[in-house]
Amino acid sequence: MNKESCSRELRIIPVPVQSDIRPGDDLAGKLLQALKHLGISLMDGDILVVKHKIVSKSEGRLVDLERIRPSASSRKWARRYKLDPRVTELALSQSKRVVRRKQGVLITQTRHGLVCANSGVDVSNVDGGRHALLLPTDPDRSALQLHGKLRKKLKLSIPVIISDSFGRPWREGLTEVAIGVAGMKPLHDYRSQRDPYGYALRVSVDAIADELACASGLLCGKLARTPACIIRGFRYRRGSGRARELIRPAKNDLFR
Amino acid sequence: MNKESCSRELRIIPVPVQSDIRPGDDLAGKLLQALKHLGISLMDGDILVVKHKIVSKSEGRLVDLERIRPSASSRKWARRYKLDPRVTELALSQSKRVVRRKQGVLITQTRHGLVCANSGVDVSNVDGGRHALLLPTDPDRSALQLHGKLRKKLKLSIPVIISDSFGRPWREGLTEVAIGVAGMKPLHDYRSQRDPYGYALRVSVDAIADELACASGLLCGKLARTPACIIRGFRYRRGSGRARELIRPAKNDLFR
Repeated sequence: MNKESCSRELRIIPVPVQSDIRPGDDLAGKLLQALKHLGISLMDGDILVVKHKIVSKSEGRLVDLERIRPSASSRKWARRYKLDPRVTELALSQSKRVVRRKQGVLITQTRHGLVCANSGVDVSNVDGGRHALLLPTDPDRSALQLHGKLRKKLKLSIPVIISDSFGRPWREGLTEVAIGVAGMKPLHDYRSQRDPYGYALRVSVDAIADELACASGLLCGKLARTPACIIRGFRYRRGSGRARELIRPAKNDLFR
Repeated sequence: MNKESCSRELRIIPVPVQSDIRPGDDLAGKLLQALKHLGISLMDGDILVVKHKIVSKSEGRLVDLERIRPSASSRKWARRYKLDPRVTELALSQSKRVVRRKQGVLITQTRHGLVCANSGVDVSNVDGGRHALLLPTDPDRSALQLHGKLRKKLKLSIPVIISDSFGRPWREGLTEVAIGVAGMKPLHDYRSQRDPYGYALRVSVDAIADELACASGLLCGKLARTPACIIRGFRYRRGSGRARELIRPAKNDLFR
């Protein structure tokens, strides 16, 4: 299926979840409950985008900040830039590589291969500063689990995207990226195709899963309890895609 | 206005344009004609996202590739990676800085400050390889002109975003970015606000215009004649914003 054969409109439907998500919660169940409350049913063709925070919370990826003992180096760095040294320490512990450490910004590559600030360790929208929240251990696996549970409960294949807000070089502001994907291809490749003028497309791979994450980011916000949304009307490519495919291999990384 | 106060859904409406856009064309007129043909009216609150190609075409930013004389260095580079040396030459002429030149990829900073491959010079979706298309001279000005013409014709303030597809470090695939903006704020700043748990948000500036561009990228594609779309239902912040605000100043650029 091709996204361009589709000229119908696309809808992004917010899914507010009133109750807090706690470690061990059945996330699929909670989301379906929220949908029922809204009078919305998931349909074949829908894509579910979920902010990573509720996934991490349901998986118990909370760390009590009181229990972190920052190193001298983390304390020095944090003091210099008025940061919490415990968060710096935790971010370093979650990284496999420091990409940049400059002007108070710590950019790392996580064990998953994601490049982001503070290894994705976050203290906002958790519990007011007592705990930090880590990224899911394996966001693709988390997406696949949610996808599987929805299939079991609904007898439908609903692609799942788990998203987080990342900064990026050269441009201001955060945008959403797909850190976990299941049930769809995250990249659409046009390289074998020709444009309407017959010109063969060279560099034409679209990061569809990231664009879907961004679209959801317009409704799933930082201040409200809207940790998920449904994207309806997008002709995605079915298959066993993973967000890992969106991570550029080290050998092709021009910024190493 | 706050995007989170909004829990209604968002709609992305594709705007196919059947006829080719030519230098000197009245783009606002052509788009309104296409909308009329579709039976769609622009409404207060709508945002119009337009692919840069039709803007550049209407502004006559076409270069006859026959007239480009590539330097020895461009010829050597192009031969090595099986590229068109005339496109390389043109890309360099449009740049103010070469950011990376590695593995056949030329990443430059354009005179506008945008960091992208080949200074945004493109040969696809033009006319089959005879001409290359440059970015608009000043995409913010182009957006403001389109915004002004729509206001005049419709007596409505419709924000305009001009988008292009850019690659990015560390992640595979292209995503849309806003290279021109008028009639809205491109960034939403949450830094003075608190999350539902009372925690003050630190690094919380969202690149809304880029997320809107990405949302449009799901429908405005490379292979079909859908160079524009309407985003309906998003509570943007009005004001005289420009895409230039999305470009990180050199002093804050960690990747220089």
